[in-house]
Amino acid sequence: MRTQVLIIGAGPSGLLLGQLLHKAGVANLIVERQTGDYVLGRIRAGVLEQTTVDLLDEAGVGTRMHAEGLVHHGFELMFDGQRHHIDLSRLTGGKSVMVYGQTEVTRDLMEARAAVGEQTLYSASDVELFGFDGDQPGARCTVDGERITILCDYIAGCDGYHGVSRASVPASAIKTHEKVYPFGWLGVLSDTPPVSHELIYGRHERGFTLCSMRSPTRSRYYLQVPLSEQVGDWSDERFWNELRARMDPEAAAALVTGPSLEKSIAPLRSFVAEPMRFGRLFLAGDAAHIVPPTGAKGLNLAASDVRYLSQAFIEHYREKSEAGIEHYSARCLSRIWKAERFSWWFTSLMHNLPNEPEIDAKLHRAELDYLVGSDAAKAAMAENYVGLPV
Amino acid sequence: MRTQVLIIGAGPSGLLLGQLLHKAGVANLIVERQTGDYVLGRIRAGVLEQTTVDLLDEAGVGTRMHAEGLVHHGFELMFDGQRHHIDLSRLTGGKSVMVYGQTEVTRDLMEARAAVGEQTLYSASDVELFGFDGDQPGARCTVDGERITILCDYIAGCDGYHGVSRASVPASAIKTHEKVYPFGWLGVLSDTPPVSHELIYGRHERGFTLCSMRSPTRSRYYLQVPLSEQVGDWSDERFWNELRARMDPEAAAALVTGPSLEKSIAPLRSFVAEPMRFGRLFLAGDAAHIVPPTGAKGLNLAASDVRYLSQAFIEHYREKSEAGIEHYSARCLSRIWKAERFSWWFTSLMHNLPNEPEIDAKLHRAELDYLVGSDAAKAAMAENYVGLPV
Repeated sequence: MRTQVLIIGAGPSGLLLGQLLHKAGVANLIVERQTGDYVLGRIRAGVLEQTTVDLLDEAGVGTRMHAEGLVHHGFELMFDGQRHHIDLSRLTGGKSVMVYGQTEVTRDLMEARAAVGEQTLYSASDVELFGFDGDQPGARCTVDGERITILCDYIAGCDGYHGVSRASVPASAIKTHEKVYPFGWLGVLSDTPPVSHELIYGRHERGFTLCSMRSPTRSRYYLQVPLSEQVGDWSDERFWNELRARMDPEAAAALVTGPSLEKSIAPLRSFVAEPMRFGRLFLAGDAAHIVPPTGAKGLNLAASDVRYLSQAFIEHYREKSEAGIEHYSARCLSRIWKAERFSWWFTSLMHNLPNEPEIDAKLHRAELDYLVGSDAAKAAMAENYVGLPV
Repeated sequence: MRTQVLIIGAGPSGLLLGQLLHKAGVANLIVERQTGDYVLGRIRAGVLEQTTVDLLDEAGVGTRMHAEGLVHHGFELMFDGQRHHIDLSRLTGGKSVMVYGQTEVTRDLMEARAAVGEQTLYSASDVELFGFDGDQPGARCTVDGERITILCDYIAGCDGYHGVSRASVPASAIKTHEKVYPFGWLGVLSDTPPVSHELIYGRHERGFTLCSMRSPTRSRYYLQVPLSEQVGDWSDERFWNELRARMDPEAAAALVTGPSLEKSIAPLRSFVAEPMRFGRLFLAGDAAHIVPPTGAKGLNLAASDVRYLSQAFIEHYREKSEAGIEHYSARCLSRIWKAERFSWWFTSLMHNLPNEPEIDAKLHRAELDYLVGSDAAKAAMAENYVGLPV
C-alpha cells in the first residue's frame, strides 16, 4: 500500500489531521491499534478553546458541536467555602470556551471520515515504523492476520503517550522532560444535572475538586485522591459524600447525585518530548506531550499541533515549500511549553500536596486571595484558559 | 521611666513609627541594642513603593528623598541574552517606584527624630520585655551600665528577625512559617555609574543577576551564588567577570567597573510569624516576616505594618477606639502573605535551583516567554512590583 501521509492513531489528533488533509486533497491513511468502539469508549476532557472550535469548523465537523455543545463565558474558583466568578469573556475581550466531550469530537470526526470514504485500518497490531530518517518511510503492521507494508512520504505519530511513534525514535535523538504529581483524579460520570451552569474548580484542605459536565443532563465530577486509592474502595455514596464535603454550603445543597456511569482514577503528569520532528516522522498531541488535566489543555494542544502539521503538509504538496515542515517542532513547542506552564501552575495552585510544608499551602492560598482581587491576574489566567494565540 | 508606646528597635520601622506617633502627639521612646552608627552602616534594599513614599511624606521626612531619589517608571527582565522592558507606569495606570537606599531613609528618620527631640536609647543591652499579656507592660534594659525599667501602654517590636520582641512571645502563642532558599546573593556596592538607568533582573544558566543602583554614580550589583561561597574568594575582578558573563552583550559592553565599597553574601528566606499581636505587644517589619529580596518588598512591607500600627495607636489615643488594635494582625497579614507570594514567585522565576529537574527550569523559561508577551501577565507583575493597595 502507498499513501502520502501515514497517520498512526485514530484518536482525535489523527482523525482531525486526516480530515484536514482530505479537504486539501492530500492522500492519507490511518492505522489504529484498537477498534473504533474502544477509541470511542475512552472518557476524556471536554473543554475546547475557540481556536480548537475554529479548527473543527475548518475540518467541516462542527455542526453537532455547535448544536449540542455548551458555550461557557466563565468558570468559578471555590475556596474557603466561597465561590468567585472568573468572567472569561469580560477578561479576554469576548472570548469563550466550548464544553463538548472529546468522545463526541472523536465520533464526529469518525463519521466525517467514513462519509468521505477515507480509510482507517483498525485493530492493526505490531505496528513497526521504518525509514523515516531517509527518503522512503513506511510502516508494517498486522491486520486480519496478514502482515502488510505501507509506504508513504511522511508519518504523523498521533498515537498517544504509550504509542509506537515516539518509541521508534532512537533515544539519542530525543529528550524527554517529565513531572509526575503525587496524587490522582478520581472521576465520576453521571446522568445528573450539573451542580452549576459553569465549571467549578475548588481548592479545599481535603483536596481539589472539579465540577464539570458533558451536557445539561450529564455531569462529570473529579476528586483529588492519593495515588494509593483503589476505585473499588469508592462506592458512589462515598464519592458524593466526599464531593459534598469539599464544596461551599450552597453548592453542596444543590448537588444532585445519581448512579455513576463510569468511575476511574487517572494519574497527573507533565511530559514533553523534544524535538517533535525526526526526519519524516512528526509527533503530535499526547505522543509528544502530556499536561495535567487542570485547565483542560490536552486536547487543545493536540489540536494546535495538528493545525501546524496539516499546514506544513499542505504547504509542501501545494506550494512545494518546506518552511512549515522545518518550523513544525519549534512552532509547536513554543505554545506547548506555555500550556505546560499554565497547567502546572493551575494544578499547583489548586491541589494539596501530601507532606507539603504549610508555608507552601499558605503561599498558594495567598495567590488565590490575590487572584480573585486582581483584574490583571484574572486576565492572565483567563487568556491562558481560553487559549493563547496560535 | 514611662511612655505611651515603647518601640524596640531604631531601624526604619521603629523610627518611622516613632515619627508618625510624634506627629500625632503620642509619647514614644525607642530602645536600640546597637549604636546609631551601626544601624546606619547596614546596607539594605533601595526600592520604595509609592505608598511607602507617601508614608514618609506623611511623617515629614520626604524632602531629601524627593531631591535625591530616582523615580523609576519601569525595569528590565534579562534572559537568553536579551532585555525586555516592563513599563510599570503604563501597566499600572501611572504608578512608579522610588530608588532611594534604606540607609538614607534611616538617616532622614534619625535626623527628624533628633530635630523634634524624641528620645532614643542606643546601646541598650539585655532588653527584657514583660507584662504585655496584662495591663502593665514594659521593658528592662541596661544603658551605660545602669539597669533601667520602662513602663508603657504598648510595646512595638520593630527589632528585626533576630530581635528580642518575637523571642519574648511564648512558643505556644505564635506560629512560624519558613522557607530557606538554597542559594545566596553576593552583593557589591561601587562608585560607578549604573549599567542602565533602570534596574535589570536577569535569569541566566550561571545564576540570577540584579543590576541595581543607589544614585547616578553609585551602583549595587548582585549575583546568585551557592550558599557555600565565601566573600573572601570573590575578588572584585572575579565578581565583575562573573557579572559580565551573565549579561546580554550590550549590557556587558556598557558595564563600568570599579573597586567595591562593600561586598557581602546574604541568604534568602521567606518567613512569617502569626499572629502579629500578643496582648499589648505588636510585631512589625522583619520581627514578624522576611521576604527574599527579589522585588524589594522587605522595607515596603515594614512600612505598611507601621502605617497600620500607627493608625491603631492614634485611633486608640484620639478616638478611644480599639478597632485598629483588634484588626492590626489580620490587616497586616493579608498584605504580607500576598507580598510573600510575589517575592517567592519572582525569586523562583529568576533563579536557578541547584539540582532542579530540567523540566522546572523549562517551565520557568516558558513563564518568562509568556510574561514578556502578555500585557495581562506583565500588568499582574507590575501591580505587585509597585505595591498592592494598602
